[in-house]
Amino acid sequence: MNNVGYTPEEPIAAIATALVPSAIGIVRVSGKNCIELASRIFSRPKALSEAQGNSLVYGWMIDPLKSKESNRIDEVMVGVYRAPKSFTGEDMVEVFCHGGVSVVTSIYSLFLANGFRPAERGEYTFRAYINGKTDLTKAEAVKEIIDSKTDVSRGRAAGRLSGNLFELIDSIKKRIVDVLGNIEVEIEYPEDEENIADCFDTAPLMDVKESLERLGASWKSEKLYQDGARVVLCGKTNAGKSSLFNTLLKEERAIVSNIEGTTRDWIESYADFGGIPVRLFDTAGLRKTDDVIEARGVELTRDLSEDADVILYLVDANNGIQKEDIDYISEQKNVPCVLVMNKCECNGSVVIPTEGPWRNAVKISAKNGIGIDELVSSVKEIVLGDASQDKEHAGLGSERQKNSVQEALERVSHALEIASTGDYGLDAVVQDLEDALDSLGEVTGDVTPDDVLGNIFSRFCVGK
Amino acid sequence: MNNVGYTPEEPIAAIATALVPSAIGIVRVSGKNCIELASRIFSRPKALSEAQGNSLVYGWMIDPLKSKESNRIDEVMVGVYRAPKSFTGEDMVEVFCHGGVSVVTSIYSLFLANGFRPAERGEYTFRAYINGKTDLTKAEAVKEIIDSKTDVSRGRAAGRLSGNLFELIDSIKKRIVDVLGNIEVEIEYPEDEENIADCFDTAPLMDVKESLERLGASWKSEKLYQDGARVVLCGKTNAGKSSLFNTLLKEERAIVSNIEGTTRDWIESYADFGGIPVRLFDTAGLRKTDDVIEARGVELTRDLSEDADVILYLVDANNGIQKEDIDYISEQKNVPCVLVMNKCECNGSVVIPTEGPWRNAVKISAKNGIGIDELVSSVKEIVLGDASQDKEHAGLGSERQKNSVQEALERVSHALEIASTGDYGLDAVVQDLEDALDSLGEVTGDVTPDDVLGNIFSRFCVGK
Repeated sequence: MNNVGYTPEEPIAAIATALVPSAIGIVRVSGKNCIELASRIFSRPKALSEAQGNSLVYGWMIDPLKSKESNRIDEVMVGVYRAPKSFTGEDMVEVFCHGGVSVVTSIYSLFLANGFRPAERGEYTFRAYINGKTDLTKAEAVKEIIDSKTDVSRGRAAGRLSGNLFELIDSIKKRIVDVLGNIEVEIEYPEDEENIADCFDTAPLMDVKESLERLGASWKSEKLYQDGARVVLCGKTNAGKSSLFNTLLKEERAIVSNIEGTTRDWIESYADFGGIPVRLFDTAGLRKTDDVIEARGVELTRDLSEDADVILYLVDANNGIQKEDIDYISEQKNVPCVLVMNKCECNGSVVIPTEGPWRNAVKISAKNGIGIDELVSSVKEIVLGDASQDKEHAGLGSERQKNSVQEALERVSHALEIASTGDYGLDAVVQDLEDALDSLGEVTGDVTPDDVLGNIFSRFCVGK
Repeated sequence: MNNVGYTPEEPIAAIATALVPSAIGIVRVSGKNCIELASRIFSRPKALSEAQGNSLVYGWMIDPLKSKESNRIDEVMVGVYRAPKSFTGEDMVEVFCHGGVSVVTSIYSLFLANGFRPAERGEYTFRAYINGKTDLTKAEAVKEIIDSKTDVSRGRAAGRLSGNLFELIDSIKKRIVDVLGNIEVEIEYPEDEENIADCFDTAPLMDVKESLERLGASWKSEKLYQDGARVVLCGKTNAGKSSLFNTLLKEERAIVSNIEGTTRDWIESYADFGGIPVRLFDTAGLRKTDDVIEARGVELTRDLSEDADVILYLVDANNGIQKEDIDYISEQKNVPCVLVMNKCECNGSVVIPTEGPWRNAVKISAKNGIGIDELVSSVKEIVLGDASQDKEHAGLGSERQKNSVQEALERVSHALEIASTGDYGLDAVVQDLEDALDSLGEVTGDVTPDDVLGNIFSRFCVGK
């Protein structure tokens, strides 16, 4: 979906809740004349068509093609919004019905049969964007907040939704525009400086560069808070993997209940590791076996390990580290391992070996919940690495934003380079800074190619 | 949940949408002072606390315990309802937020931390009932409409939700009260009749009996429209089961997309067979085999067949019916079979055998969609049997209602019996009719024991 050939205000309809039996379902419509159109399939047409904006109207959805005995679809509340005071900036109607699958789909079909077409993915937000109700950073934050899995990722997205990224980008743009203004004056009324760096004050541009660097660097941790990390529990049979799995889910708050692997050879679940949504895998125990099914389990454990961001390798501290343990960890060349000495409740004097192929090592008791905080910190430290965790400032919300900020940064750096080397004239600096402004404009959507728009909104869910 | 020790108006909160990422999520609260309580966790407290009933207020949900930088949970619209004009009859607030799992649960937790307790299953509807906003037939229809799987079952529930069953019960009660009135007069001012049947006109009571019989009989088809039927596709490998499965889902409108059996030995899906939600199973092909996994598939097919309401037994018409086919059908003593002669597109002259262990036999071409309507009718005919399909009149919505109507019918029949035999006096007739009124009162909830109430509402979903 993009501006090319797009008809704004065409009445669109979508189901805005999941098609799962629940207390309330929502069908939402937007576009020109949509309140009038909706009133034709409503038991109290006048009450609806004359309703004020931001009001709720009680009544029944009615199929006008059916007889009076069987035309009642559902008893509903209808939310009415009048342009421009709505999410899309157009007239809108939201039907709050009983959350049955058949009810919701019937009401949706009723709209489609009475003047509405199905909305495309993200089309409501797209309209909000083209009607100036939102910029692209806030629009993308809508998707982020829906997909967020932990309080931290939700909070980061809420910040962008409230406009903190937009404001930051805007302030950077203003600083570039100021510099450009000074340069224009210099070009109009040149003084005879030796060096072009002397033609304008580069300090504000250094500041801009620093801001862009910090903003660009934010993406690594933002992405991690959005996408999360894969953590695989490995170790020999009876090292206590399942016990640790359950303890982690309990103490770190399971996000969803257990999902069984399609083959039941592993179990996975989400847990909140200090704001990072961690997809945790409990695997089959490692041991040499002739049994075909068990061998398959061990093989799958190896596959999962290869795709992990971190491996937690468990050892029963009472048995100590064996050669097979070292071998398995050594095999995982590309994935950092944490050596987890478990069952330390039995033997307080366990010493963590200082040398080995692991990144970190911790002592825990999965049974008694000892050492779990340390283990979680250890995982966070590995996955975050040197990623900035500047929670006070706005961060980036998407790869797309990151790429545009990166481009802007390159242009600004180039401008500073020209200024310091004096290889090119002021015109080249102006060109660089205008390019940087364009890149930043793409972040917020002041200037955004149509194909980029299509790409952004096609990733939304329907109804948003 | 029932009246015993229940505190009405206590502020309650619930998530009213499925916890699946979607465009919009809803958290709803009800109870005394709930608008004021909600305004304390809202960015525009005054706008919310002073909002009119049936209005929508824009703002942010705010965690008052967090700093100004991080206290914003989500940008929302809040629906405000003022008692008694609300679903529960109390003040209510509905928060329409972004439909992310973390967002919805965060807002729900925010309410719990700020004066609300979690609502029990069906507690909103229970409050609507105790506040006189609904009777029990309408309350139960709320659950029915949410669970309904086809347009027909949704339409039947919508009829009850709009009060058609309530009105029917009410009219029957009025007729019984009239008869009772006449009898009272007779008891006060007795005339010297020979026979007690002569003491009052029994014709209205005969009418009542007939109405109750028709109403009671409606439950068989209503239950079928609610619960649906299990239909299993069997037959030898290559008889065309999967092809028929897909044709049925396409032509009869799949209700949900394919659900894979946990072992992948069968596939199931819902289809709408003329209003009856049919759970359709495509099974492994039947053939003798030494392969362990295949043998397991055949065994499962037998298990599924045993639990079916109807078996569709497919035969490739070009090969004709073999002994194994007859054997398999004969084995299914308790489940009616439809013999389906498939692939008739190749051979138009296929003759359906007149004799056999099947209930019905049809000729089809799954590939070309020929004979599918007949097949569907055949299944409907078997599962509905002699069930009344009186679509114009109200039908019963639950086993509980059916039992109470049955009791009322027995009392009325007994009264008529007394009147005709003259074995007992008028007092016995009065007692019977008063019992009948009580039973009908239980249907609508005028008089309903607390344990019955608890049983009804505990089967609802949370948030309703």
